Amino acid sequence: MCRWLGYLGNPIRPEELLYQPARSLIEQSKSHGSGVSAANADGHGLGWYGTADAPGLFRSASPAWGDRNLREVSAQISSPLFLAHVRASTGTPVQQTNCHPFRHGQWMFVHNGFIDGYDRLRRDLLLRVDPKLFPGIEGTTDSELMFYLALTFGLVDDPVGGLERMAGFIEAEGRRAGSAHPLQMTVGISDGVRLYAARYASGVEANTLYVSSSVRDLRLLYPADERLQHFSDESRVIVSEPLVDLPGLWREVPPGTALVVQEGDDREVPFRPYEP
Amino acid sequence: MCRWLGYLGNPIRPEELLYQPARSLIEQSKSHGSGVSAANADGHGLGWYGTADAPGLFRSASPAWGDRNLREVSAQISSPLFLAHVRASTGTPVQQTNCHPFRHGQWMFVHNGFIDGYDRLRRDLLLRVDPKLFPGIEGTTDSELMFYLALTFGLVDDPVGGLERMAGFIEAEGRRAGSAHPLQMTVGISDGVRLYAARYASGVEANTLYVSSSVRDLRLLYPADERLQHFSDESRVIVSEPLVDLPGLWREVPPGTALVVQEGDDREVPFRPYEP
Amino acid sequence: MCRWLGYLGNPIRPEELLYQPARSLIEQSKSHGSGVSAANADGHGLGWYGTADAPGLFRSASPAWGDRNLREVSAQISSPLFLAHVRASTGTPVQQTNCHPFRHGQWMFVHNGFIDGYDRLRRDLLLRVDPKLFPGIEGTTDSELMFYLALTFGLVDDPVGGLERMAGFIEAEGRRAGSAHPLQMTVGISDGVRLYAARYASGVEANTLYVSSSVRDLRLLYPADERLQHFSDESRVIVSEPLVDLPGLWREVPPGTALVVQEGDDREVPFRPYEP
Amino acid sequence: MCRWLGYLGNPIRPEELLYQPARSLIEQSKSHGSGVSAANADGHGLGWYGTADAPGLFRSASPAWGDRNLREVSAQISSPLFLAHVRASTGTPVQQTNCHPFRHGQWMFVHNGFIDGYDRLRRDLLLRVDPKLFPGIEGTTDSELMFYLALTFGLVDDPVGGLERMAGFIEAEGRRAGSAHPLQMTVGISDGVRLYAARYASGVEANTLYVSSSVRDLRLLYPADERLQHFSDESRVIVSEPLVDLPGLWREVPPGTALVVQEGDDREVPFRPYEP
Repeated sequence: MCRWLGYLGNPIRPEELLYQPARSLIEQSKSHGSGVSAANADGHGLGWYGTADAPGLFRSASPAWGDRNLREVSAQISSPLFLAHVRASTGTPVQQTNCHPFRHGQWMFVHNGFIDGYDRLRRDLLLRVDPKLFPGIEGTTDSELMFYLALTFGLVDDPVGGLERMAGFIEAEGRRAGSAHPLQMTVGISDGVRLYAARYASGVEANTLYVSSSVRDLRLLYPADERLQHFSDESRVIVSEPLVDLPGLWREVPPGTALVVQEGDDREVPFRPYEP
Repeated sequence: MCRWLGYLGNPIRPEELLYQPARSLIEQSKSHGSGVSAANADGHGLGWYGTADAPGLFRSASPAWGDRNLREVSAQISSPLFLAHVRASTGTPVQQTNCHPFRHGQWMFVHNGFIDGYDRLRRDLLLRVDPKLFPGIEGTTDSELMFYLALTFGLVDDPVGGLERMAGFIEAEGRRAGSAHPLQMTVGISDGVRLYAARYASGVEANTLYVSSSVRDLRLLYPADERLQHFSDESRVIVSEPLVDLPGLWREVPPGTALVVQEGDDREVPFRPYEP
Repeated sequence: MCRWLGYLGNPIRPEELLYQPARSLIEQSKSHGSGVSAANADGHGLGWYGTADAPGLFRSASPAWGDRNLREVSAQISSPLFLAHVRASTGTPVQQTNCHPFRHGQWMFVHNGFIDGYDRLRRDLLLRVDPKLFPGIEGTTDSELMFYLALTFGLVDDPVGGLERMAGFIEAEGRRAGSAHPLQMTVGISDGVRLYAARYASGVEANTLYVSSSVRDLRLLYPADERLQHFSDESRVIVSEPLVDLPGLWREVPPGTALVVQEGDDREVPFRPYEP
Repeated sequence: MCRWLGYLGNPIRPEELLYQPARSLIEQSKSHGSGVSAANADGHGLGWYGTADAPGLFRSASPAWGDRNLREVSAQISSPLFLAHVRASTGTPVQQTNCHPFRHGQWMFVHNGFIDGYDRLRRDLLLRVDPKLFPGIEGTTDSELMFYLALTFGLVDDPVGGLERMAGFIEAEGRRAGSAHPLQMTVGISDGVRLYAARYASGVEANTLYVSSSVRDLRLLYPADERLQHFSDESRVIVSEPLVDLPGLWREVPPGTALVVQEGDDREVPFRPYEP
C-alpha cells in the first residue's frame, strides 16, 4: 500500500507538507499502517508545477526519509500545485521508473492500490494502450499502466471520464480473467490547473482518502493556529491519511467519489466505472 | 534499532535463515518492532566465510527485502559461518560504507544499538583508534568506530576483552561528556572460527539477544520437524529477535553477558566493561 | 556500445577475467573505445552457473569499476561457465532490470549492439513475444526483448536457429518501418552446458567478437607463461574486445558467424537470419 | 580527475550550462580527457543559491549523464550563482557524501585534483580540523577535508587566505611524509555573493582552469550569436575545460592564481600557499 498527497493553493515549499506536520507524508512512510505489512520504503517521488514550461519531477527508488535530495529540492522550490508519493511495491521492481508521479506532457498521476492478478492481465492491458502513447511507458507497474489507459480513454479532455473508463476496462478484463475484485485505487492527477482525485474499489473495502476543509472555516475554528495563517483561503490538501490531528480539518472522501479541486468552488461527483 | 543474525554450523545457504523462516531476518526488517519508529530499511549486509582466503562481504544501502542481489548471493553461496544485518540508521547517512558487517582482515562485526551523544563524542573516539588501523575506517557510524576501538584494544588476541575495553572506554568518555547511559549494544563478531556475541547496555534496558538451543535436544523435542534434520548437532543461530515460534528453541542471552559459540561446548561469560 | 565476456572451462573465480588481465573487462569499461562516445558505466552484471540448481545473477545499475559487491562476489564464487557484461545505454533507463545478463530458467543472455529505431518498433516486437513468456520481461531494453523473441522462436530447442529467427524477424519488422540496417549484435547465451555466441549486423560494420585459442596450443607457444597453467586444455573465453595482448591468443570471429563452445570440439557455423 | 563549473551572473537555469553547450559539463563527463584513465562517472553534484535562505544541494553517486533528477532539477530552478561537479574517484568510495559541492552554512566548495599520499596523511589532516567544525565532515574524500581545513584556517573571513593556508599546511604535512608534490588542485568556492577560484599545484603541471571573457566584449566580437544575448554583461563562467569552441571566449587562468568573480570588476591575485 502506497501513500500520497496533493496540494493546490498559494505557492508553498513542498517540505512544509512533506516533512513538517506531526504525521507528515515522510513520517507516515516510516511505519506500516494497520493491517499493512511493510513501510513505504520502495521509492518516492515529487512532481510539481513551477516556473518552467513543463512540470518538474523528482523520483528515487530509495526510502524517502533518508533521501537528502528530496529534502533539498522540496525546500528550494515553491509551487502552487504538487503531488508527492511514497511507495510500497506490490511486486514490481524497486526502481526509479516505477516511482510515482508518472508524467505525460502537462499531466501527472499518483496511485495507491493495485490491479488484482496484474501479472496475468498485464499483456492484455498493455495492448489496449494507444500505440501512439505506448512509447511513453517506461516502467512496469500497474499504476503507470492505469495512467496510460486513462490517457487512451480520453483523460486529457475529460479527466474523470477517462479515469472511469480506465477503471471500467480493468474491471471488465479482470472479471473475464476470474478476479472477484479487480481494482483497488485512490488516484490523484493534475494538469497544472486543477487537482483531481478519485476513491474507488471493486469490492467493499476502499483505501482511504481525505481532503482538507476550507482554510477560511478552519481559521474561524482555530484563530490562534499559526500554521493556518500561511495558507490561502482556497488551499486544499488531499491525502491518503491525515497529516495532523486537528478536529474538523480532514473530511473523508466517500468511496465511489471523484473530486475536482480548483479555483472557486470544488466539485465532488460520483465515480462510476464503465467499460469504454 | 538494527537487527542481526549470526550462524555457525554445517555449511548452509544463508537464504535458509534470511528468507525462509516465518519471521526471517528479511521479514522482520519490513516492520518496526514494539516501541520502534521505523523499519530496518536503511541498508543491509551479509558477511560470510567461504572457500576463498578472505571472508566475503555483500553490502547495500537499499532495503533488504527488495534487493535482488542479496537474494541471489545468499542462495548461491554455502557457508558454515556468517553474519547478516538489517539497518535502521540512528542519524548517519544511508550509504554502503555505513552498512554492517564491517570487516578487518579475517574479522567481521555487526552491531545493534548506539553510542549516546555520538555527534559530540565522535572526534575524541576517532583519535583513540590506533593510527595504523585508522585508514581502515571507511564510514561514519558509531558501530564501525566501536569495531575499530575494540581492535585497538586487543580484539584479535582477546575478543571478549577487546569488546569490554571498547565498551568501558566509550562509557568513560560518554560520562565525562555528561551522558547518563552512554552505550547500548548487542554485537556479533567472528574470526572465521568462532562466533562471539555480547549483550550490554549502560542503563537497565538492553536490546534483546537470543541464541538457539542444541539441535540435538530440539530433535528429541520435535522428532517430526523436517527443518531440524538439515542442521548439524552443533549448529547455532544468534539473533536479535526469534526467527520462528518454536517453544524451547530460543534462549534469551542475559544482559551483561558474552557468548563464545564454537566447535565443542559453547561458553557464556559475564561481560564487564572497564576503561583500558 | 556494451562489452561482454563469456567463459567455459575448468571452474575459476570470475574475478580472474573481470579484474586481473591488463585489459580486463572492468578496465575496458572505464574508457570508451574508438569512435564510441561513452564509457560502459550504465550498469553491469555477472551470471554464473554454480552449485545451486539455478544460475546466479548479480546485476547493478552503477559503473562496474566502483562496485564493491561485484568485486566480492566474483572473488568468492567459482564457476565453470559464466557471462559478464558492462553496459552503455543506447537510450533506455539506467536501472537494474535493464542490465545484462537476462535470465530465463537455465538460460542466460548478453548482447552488444542495438535495434535501429527501437522506440518505434518496440510495441510490435513486444506483441510477437509468446504470451506465456511475456510476464518474464522486466526491463525495457531492446536486448531483453531480443532474448524473449529468440525464446519465442525456439531458442531452447535450437539455440542458433532461435537467434537466427529472432534476427530475421527484427530485420523484417525494421525494414517495413523504413530502417536500412535494423540490427547490430554480438550475443552470448548459455544453458549451463554450452556457451553460444553470434556476431551479426544488417549492414557491413559488425561489432567485434573474439574467441580465445586452445589453451593446449598456447602452452606450446608460451611454455613459461604462468597464467596459462591455471586453465584446462579446453577453456575458452569469448570477448567483445581482447583482454590481453598475446599474439596468437585471440581469433576474431567473422561477421555472420555463430559459435558453439562445448566439451569436445567447438563448432563454428554461418549465422543466417530468416523471418520465422 | 574531476571536472567542475561555476557561474555568476543573471539568473539562469543551470541546465543551460550543464547540458546545452557542445562540450557541456555532462558531455565532458562521458569521456576521459587526454592522459586520463576514466570518465567522470563516480558521482556528481549541483549546488545553487536560490530563493531559500540556505543554498540548495543536489548530489548523486551515479553518472551525471544518466541521472534524470539532475536534468529535472537543473531545468526547474533558476539561479544567479551555482557550482556543478562531475567526479572521478581517486580511491575513496563512490557515495553521495563524497560528491561535490560540499557545503558549510552559506559556503560551497568544489575541487579537481588530489592530495598525494592521502591515505597516510588523512588522520593527521583530520586532527587539524577545528573540533567545532569536525562534526560537519560527512564523507571521506581529500576534497571535503581540504574544505574543512580551509574553514579552520579562516576561509569565511579571508577566502583566498584560507585556501592558501590550507594548501600550505597540506604541502608541509605532505613533504614531512616524503611527498615531492603533495597537492594538485583547482577549487571553486562561493558564499552566495562572490565566486572564488584557485589554480595551484605543488609541481609544475597544474590541472587546467578557464574563465569566460566579458559578455560585453564577446557581443562585439559575435554580434549575431544568440546564445550571448541571454547573458548579462557581467556573467562569468569558470570551468575546468572549455564548454564551447568560440575563439576569444575562454581565457586560461595561470597556475598559482586566484580569481574573485563579483559584481563590478573581477580580481585576479597570486595564490601563494604558506604554512599557517
